[in-house]
Amino acid sequence: MKAYLDNAATTKMDEEVIELMHQMMQNNYGNPSSIHEMGRKSRVIVEHARTTISKLLKVSPNEIFFTSGGTESINSIISGLLQNPDIKRIITSPTEHSSMLRSIEHHAKINGKEVIILNVDKFGHVDIAQLKEVLSQFEDIAVVSLMHGNNEIGTLLHLKKVGEICRKHQSLFVSDMVQTMGKYANDLSSGMLDFAMGSAHKFHGPKGVGFMYINGNNKILPFILGGSQERNMRAGTENMISIAGMAKAMEIAYANMEVNSQRLAELKNYLVQKIESDFPHLEINGDPQGGLYNLLSIAVPKTIHNQLLLMKFDILGVFLSGGSACSSGVIKDSHVITAIGKVKNYRPIRLSMSKFTTKEEIDYFLEVLKKV
Amino acid sequence: MKAYLDNAATTKMDEEVIELMHQMMQNNYGNPSSIHEMGRKSRVIVEHARTTISKLLKVSPNEIFFTSGGTESINSIISGLLQNPDIKRIITSPTEHSSMLRSIEHHAKINGKEVIILNVDKFGHVDIAQLKEVLSQFEDIAVVSLMHGNNEIGTLLHLKKVGEICRKHQSLFVSDMVQTMGKYANDLSSGMLDFAMGSAHKFHGPKGVGFMYINGNNKILPFILGGSQERNMRAGTENMISIAGMAKAMEIAYANMEVNSQRLAELKNYLVQKIESDFPHLEINGDPQGGLYNLLSIAVPKTIHNQLLLMKFDILGVFLSGGSACSSGVIKDSHVITAIGKVKNYRPIRLSMSKFTTKEEIDYFLEVLKKV
Repeated sequence: MKAYLDNAATTKMDEEVIELMHQMMQNNYGNPSSIHEMGRKSRVIVEHARTTISKLLKVSPNEIFFTSGGTESINSIISGLLQNPDIKRIITSPTEHSSMLRSIEHHAKINGKEVIILNVDKFGHVDIAQLKEVLSQFEDIAVVSLMHGNNEIGTLLHLKKVGEICRKHQSLFVSDMVQTMGKYANDLSSGMLDFAMGSAHKFHGPKGVGFMYINGNNKILPFILGGSQERNMRAGTENMISIAGMAKAMEIAYANMEVNSQRLAELKNYLVQKIESDFPHLEINGDPQGGLYNLLSIAVPKTIHNQLLLMKFDILGVFLSGGSACSSGVIKDSHVITAIGKVKNYRPIRLSMSKFTTKEEIDYFLEVLKKV
Repeated sequence: MKAYLDNAATTKMDEEVIELMHQMMQNNYGNPSSIHEMGRKSRVIVEHARTTISKLLKVSPNEIFFTSGGTESINSIISGLLQNPDIKRIITSPTEHSSMLRSIEHHAKINGKEVIILNVDKFGHVDIAQLKEVLSQFEDIAVVSLMHGNNEIGTLLHLKKVGEICRKHQSLFVSDMVQTMGKYANDLSSGMLDFAMGSAHKFHGPKGVGFMYINGNNKILPFILGGSQERNMRAGTENMISIAGMAKAMEIAYANMEVNSQRLAELKNYLVQKIESDFPHLEINGDPQGGLYNLLSIAVPKTIHNQLLLMKFDILGVFLSGGSACSSGVIKDSHVITAIGKVKNYRPIRLSMSKFTTKEEIDYFLEVLKKV
């Protein structure tokens, strides 16, 4: 028995997506920027994908820009925003993804911007009162960057509430939606959000492709320079087959979203109940009353015996992460677990599920949890 | 009859590459940064690809870094180099790819570096005497960025000669090798070059993936920040299936390089002879005695009748470009054709071949050329 419970790191590709991409690899190779028939055929593929994604998000196709993934999207948006001389500061939280924190740190430094890090409570919730207070101190435009669903502990941001606060203070709202795209019916039509991003491999699409949403009222400088692709916002030959695969994966995700999310929410409930009843020494990281329906982070009290906890799970075929997967194999303390004050006495184990996750896998995890 | 003669824009994928990627999409999806078994399997795929490419280029695997393609690689290297306070100036040519020129322009401006553009002759050859002269004027480290094979007119740089000049003056040598990777047996072991890059879709691999070569003696700041992937040089989940596809495409390219390049050189010869004999009003752009063996740029004297020349070719099934393909359908004067002094009186048509190009396609092109 094996259990793949690392879907926040990456997901298995949809069979339909694989077949579409396989067929396109055989039949389509024109460069979308070539003006001849073969180029135009590829251009149609790219623009069709853009329309598909924009319809799902209820925005204009002109607001969607394709990139190589979530990390590039985040770097692009932060680099573009912080080059704007009208922007003096950026407000964020300590529990953002490292690509957001590192981008902010670097681009704020080279552009001489102030960085304000909000407090988070023990569940990872950002201090909204503090956000209001900070924003009301300044007259100029601030950037507020707060992620929608935390990738390590699953804590969800109240997008509408934060969006309203940002609007009230004429601030720009960026939300890293990499963990919620394709999982929640993110409706961006309200105009609350200015910038967001998604990554295909988090919702059963291919790796190496993602997108940025840039609200039509905003204009930022491009990050990758050199060609007029993506309406001058991202140079480089369009990765059109992966782009098509991403759009297909997103379509499938939306088509079955309600059924899948309900089943996974029930599975998470079952898991939480089992943990509470059978493992009273364990705690839940993140908001016990909510959070991503497909993710559960468990705090295991540190002992000398569980130092190699993840490896023990691995040996028994249970595949999960501690914090996030994005640290190239180096196990170091998670900045998120540190921010919620649990790094000293606990080891985190993150279970993240997808539509392919079965109750058998969860039961197997529980069985192994007793042993390790 | 159709003729695809736009292989400098992009190439048809190798069947073997497609099958490898298809199979991997079905079987491999672990995140290479996950420490469990599925992650480790993906890590092996990435590192195996790195070893394959590094062996072909005769360099160390530690000198190869995966990216989303040629344009990102160029942006990364230029951004990284020009952030170095020890570097005061960058020397380049007017016929570089627009991603190089735009990157240099932007990063030189924000970092306060001098940009020196060398002269090129009517064949697109860089003025080497001028390069020497410029380098001998300064004591500090300069960056010299000169492409190996020009993507619009095929002019080749004498890498060894330029490399030696750069070494002599303690300058760093960057060469955009996007058009020659997988086409020439680029041996980077001599240490002449400091930075180079390749893009898989130019040699029958997938779009959306490429690599940078960074000589082990050099260290630059990363461009895409946020995770320790690619040994801290490129954050973001590794696009491992495309990376594997790229390595496979490169292996195939090297295995058949001699036969393919000889056949294409003969085909180009045949084409040049036919042009000279049957179309005496046409000229060849670039070096008539050399240049990329798979590319021929023809200068067609401007008349009112040939304004829509490329479209006429297109209608008759001959797919080629004017300058490069990277201008998203907007036909504007090519900066390369401008630099070699031919933009006023001539329209360029670029034929670029690959191993899949047949003599029948070339003959069909010649037939259509008589009509348009």
